Amino acid sequence: MIDIEHAIQDDYGDDFAWCYGCGRLNEKGLQLRTGWEGEKTVTVYMPHEEHMALPGFVYGGLIGSIIDCHGTGSASLALHRKNGHEPGDGVEPPRFVTASLHVDFVKPTPLNGPLKAVGTVEEIHPKKFRVLTELFAGDKVCAKGEVVAAVMPDTFLKK
Amino acid sequence: MIDIEHAIQDDYGDDFAWCYGCGRLNEKGLQLRTGWEGEKTVTVYMPHEEHMALPGFVYGGLIGSIIDCHGTGSASLALHRKNGHEPGDGVEPPRFVTASLHVDFVKPTPLNGPLKAVGTVEEIHPKKFRVLTELFAGDKVCAKGEVVAAVMPDTFLKK
Repeated sequence: MIDIEHAIQDDYGDDFAWCYGCGRLNEKGLQLRTGWEGEKTVTVYMPHEEHMALPGFVYGGLIGSIIDCHGTGSASLALHRKNGHEPGDGVEPPRFVTASLHVDFVKPTPLNGPLKAVGTVEEIHPKKFRVLTELFAGDKVCAKGEVVAAVMPDTFLKK
Repeated sequence: MIDIEHAIQDDYGDDFAWCYGCGRLNEKGLQLRTGWEGEKTVTVYMPHEEHMALPGFVYGGLIGSIIDCHGTGSASLALHRKNGHEPGDGVEPPRFVTASLHVDFVKPTPLNGPLKAVGTVEEIHPKKFRVLTELFAGDKVCAKGEVVAAVMPDTFLKK
């Protein structure tokens, strides 16, 4: 597995860093981190024992959560790069929300090691991106996902 | 909000009651419960404060988890009823797994009260059901979901 040195979530503004899935400030959450690996985006997560569907297998909701936050993080990485920036360069990236999430559960996902989401990002519109994701356990693709992510509307900020 | 007196998850066999989303034996999990409300299926869940996307709004992964487990529970309710049974009658129901999950996030979901999933179940095949779900916060539909659930294959049991 790879280490993600610079994750996009590290650079989200503090107001946008509370997501249970990927917020670095949410101490009870998963704290997912998403970075570039060449032209692909990657998120790695080690499930906890309680994240089971049945003993030995990961429950679907965690897989959906990883694919969801990996999707918004990947879209943020892509638009940030398009704007000339990389995570770690000190510029706050755009924050996305999920418009839709689709997951095909290809095979039972073993709960005995890290899960790695690998994404391909495609721009649909200047403010909307599609992220196609394969979720690996070891070298096996256990789920495939598609997220459509849109730049977060102002209505999301309670101020 | 309604109380679910007899939930299908109450009757799952002990081996199948460990899911983080809907297993009654998973003490760290959400312990979602799904029952009939006439011809509709319902699941009610009160999100915790940490289940946020941003302060005040529910994160997508929880919504996906609810729709996912509501989907497998609804499919189980439907096949159980087709077989002549109702939750609470002492017969162990069939257990389903998710083949695919789709969620459209219609509007930001407020984190200030219970969420109620309301499902319509349709048989695709004797071992496969489609569950269409609307997720309500109060009287507003905040997300729409579609789950295809299949009777759990034997490969899921590690014995």
